Amino acid sequence: MAKVDFWYEFASTYSYPAAMRVEALAAARRVELDWRPFLLGPLFAAQGWRDSPFNIYPAKGRYMWRDMQRVCERIGLPLARPDPFPQNSLFAARVALMLEAPARAAFSRGVYLAQFGEGRPIAEVATLAPLIEALGLDANETLERAQCAANKERLKAECTRAAEIGLPGAPCLVTSDGEVFWGNDRLEEGLEWEIARASR
Amino acid sequence: MAKVDFWYEFASTYSYPAAMRVEALAAARRVELDWRPFLLGPLFAAQGWRDSPFNIYPAKGRYMWRDMQRVCERIGLPLARPDPFPQNSLFAARVALMLEAPARAAFSRGVYLAQFGEGRPIAEVATLAPLIEALGLDANETLERAQCAANKERLKAECTRAAEIGLPGAPCLVTSDGEVFWGNDRLEEGLEWEIARASR
Repeated sequence: MAKVDFWYEFASTYSYPAAMRVEALAAARRVELDWRPFLLGPLFAAQGWRDSPFNIYPAKGRYMWRDMQRVCERIGLPLARPDPFPQNSLFAARVALMLEAPARAAFSRGVYLAQFGEGRPIAEVATLAPLIEALGLDANETLERAQCAANKERLKAECTRAAEIGLPGAPCLVTSDGEVFWGNDRLEEGLEWEIARASR
Repeated sequence: MAKVDFWYEFASTYSYPAAMRVEALAAARRVELDWRPFLLGPLFAAQGWRDSPFNIYPAKGRYMWRDMQRVCERIGLPLARPDPFPQNSLFAARVALMLEAPARAAFSRGVYLAQFGEGRPIAEVATLAPLIEALGLDANETLERAQCAANKERLKAECTRAAEIGLPGAPCLVTSDGEVFWGNDRLEEGLEWEIARASR
């Protein structure tokens, strides 16, 4: 069976077009997809960054926003710049991790569209609650459960796992045989790799 | 007329497949190509880096070398890892800049193949001289002229220009209307942008 892990960080700009594209790309190739939200913060902190590298290095930041405009225009996605950037993604990541698979994917796309499509804050209940209700779930209960100790620990474990794999950033596709494909630009290549592996 | 600038740094890994691909891609689209060697060192130093970011950030470095393997395998390029990495690219950049256009492109591909195809040192006369002779030029005279004050100043001016444009790294394609496309992954997109611009 062909299966890949899609590792994503809500505050990551290129994770937005990737999250909007990956499900259709995987389905077209009959590759199963596991949505794995994580946080880049701990990985960045380990290498001495206390902010997004796109803020620390202005030339990279200016380029990224222009490139994101082109990337989003190409696939017909709206692009707005949340303020501040990056947004605090902890709460949204906890909620996503607690949801069952199909709800998690739909919720995650909703968070990305709110944040990078409309520029809305993603650490706020006012943004997240309607996304949860749209899934037919109780928002208050879901948000509360997302903050329980067990779920917090689960997200920490996912971040530890991301560091163990050696993810260099987000988004990443990781194939069944452990190949890492970094970036919205590598989704197709990662899926093709997994298909070739599964057919061997 | 359609024309793009191809900005490259000899020590940059992804500039290697880009340099090997770009001429055929541009010719197929009838886009004129200006090869512009420059140095990332001054740009990196300005943001506090004293080494390649692929050395400073080990997860990025490990990923990059694995990704380079895949990129090179896909297009049938040999890949060797020069030691040390990054190589000092100052001398090679001066030589390239001093050569006329067609010789510059051929010499540059030769430097990349020697360095990343065979793992050879590119700051040494023993590596560079045969590449110059293969162009039908006198190696001693060429290497000497590359080190003249005027040529040194010309390379500095190119680095200043790269900083003014805001190049975030190498390689980059810059179109006639000033759009920057960063990375081996963006060559095709940059050329298509220039064609669309020229046909307006």
